[in-house]
Amino acid sequence: MTTRKHAVLGTGMVGKAIASKLVQLGQPTRMGSRTKGNAAAAEWAKGAGELAGEGSFGEVARDADVVWLALKGEHALGVVESIREELAGKVVLDLTNPLDFSKGFPPALSVMNDDSLGEQIQRAAPEARVVKTFNTLANTLMVDPQKLGEATDVFVAGESAEAKAVAVEVLKSFGHEAPIDMGGIAASRGLEAWLLLWTRLFGVFGTAEFNLKLVRAKRA
Amino acid sequence: MTTRKHAVLGTGMVGKAIASKLVQLGQPTRMGSRTKGNAAAAEWAKGAGELAGEGSFGEVARDADVVWLALKGEHALGVVESIREELAGKVVLDLTNPLDFSKGFPPALSVMNDDSLGEQIQRAAPEARVVKTFNTLANTLMVDPQKLGEATDVFVAGESAEAKAVAVEVLKSFGHEAPIDMGGIAASRGLEAWLLLWTRLFGVFGTAEFNLKLVRAKRA
Repeated sequence: MTTRKHAVLGTGMVGKAIASKLVQLGQPTRMGSRTKGNAAAAEWAKGAGELAGEGSFGEVARDADVVWLALKGEHALGVVESIREELAGKVVLDLTNPLDFSKGFPPALSVMNDDSLGEQIQRAAPEARVVKTFNTLANTLMVDPQKLGEATDVFVAGESAEAKAVAVEVLKSFGHEAPIDMGGIAASRGLEAWLLLWTRLFGVFGTAEFNLKLVRAKRA
Repeated sequence: MTTRKHAVLGTGMVGKAIASKLVQLGQPTRMGSRTKGNAAAAEWAKGAGELAGEGSFGEVARDADVVWLALKGEHALGVVESIREELAGKVVLDLTNPLDFSKGFPPALSVMNDDSLGEQIQRAAPEARVVKTFNTLANTLMVDPQKLGEATDVFVAGESAEAKAVAVEVLKSFGHEAPIDMGGIAASRGLEAWLLLWTRLFGVFGTAEFNLKLVRAKRA
């Protein structure tokens, strides 16, 4: 993979999984959080070696080529609004889902149907080149899809073909053989709606380690 | 498969595909429409042989053991309300989707997130034993899943375990090896939300002949 500077915004399990994978792949990667020196980010950076660093959301975004939004849905829009200028021109990979757990599990979505969090994020940072991706599967499978034993599907959606090409290159380097290009950022509506089925399947299967494979007819 | 009397409500492609498959499998099947003698229903019945018949929605539902809702989403609730008494005690297989094409393609959903058409239908006919199923794939694949060349997934959701067992038996006889039990009828929220992704995939693939296969991790 081409070497690029990555900023991973978010210090949770998704952020750590993505950031560690990027470092393994030889990519300079900084983890971003609200405040430089955040304990979780500092601990990750310390353990992840020379290519790893950390800083505030704005700092790490400003210096990066690719910015990953590994944030809870409820926080994502506020963070993006606060660093709108730092995101201008960047490839922004939006992994978020607008999950609303206020009525328990399974969650509802806080935006959907005729809008989506992906679109809200693109509107909040109009000069960023937002690509909705990786919101459809567990973080352990984002970085290790071979666990599934066969190829499954992941997606990219966004307005910039160039940014989607970067996303596809990164996804392939993670082991995803053929990411599906869903078109513009409005396809986030479909990719986020999947969570309404995903969360119920999680309840049925008792594990998050599953993904969908789209199978097309072999004969007419 | 156990022989049961089936009523298929709807004379469109879905209704015809289901009704023809049932007759092929030796099941007495009547197609229902608004008015007995409907041209499409009569033509189907004439061509489908001795086990086939037709009649009004209420007539065919009254005499059936299993009632299939192969109706457009916008009509489904009205039809169910009009034959609420005839549906009492029946296994009602709800194949509908609340698609709203008023703003073009891809459609939005007219109900979703904290409610669903499946739940509305169950509430409209409280004594019916509604099972949401087969709303997630094209009619050609409902009745001929082998076209896909490998096993893919279909679902059942509903309050009655007995009704779901009937649905699973029928789905297996159609070639679906292992329908997934999603729990109660509220799981229709997830199964119907899938259409927001399905319709966009239809646009990308240029065919309706695809289905999802859920792949679980083979190793921890």
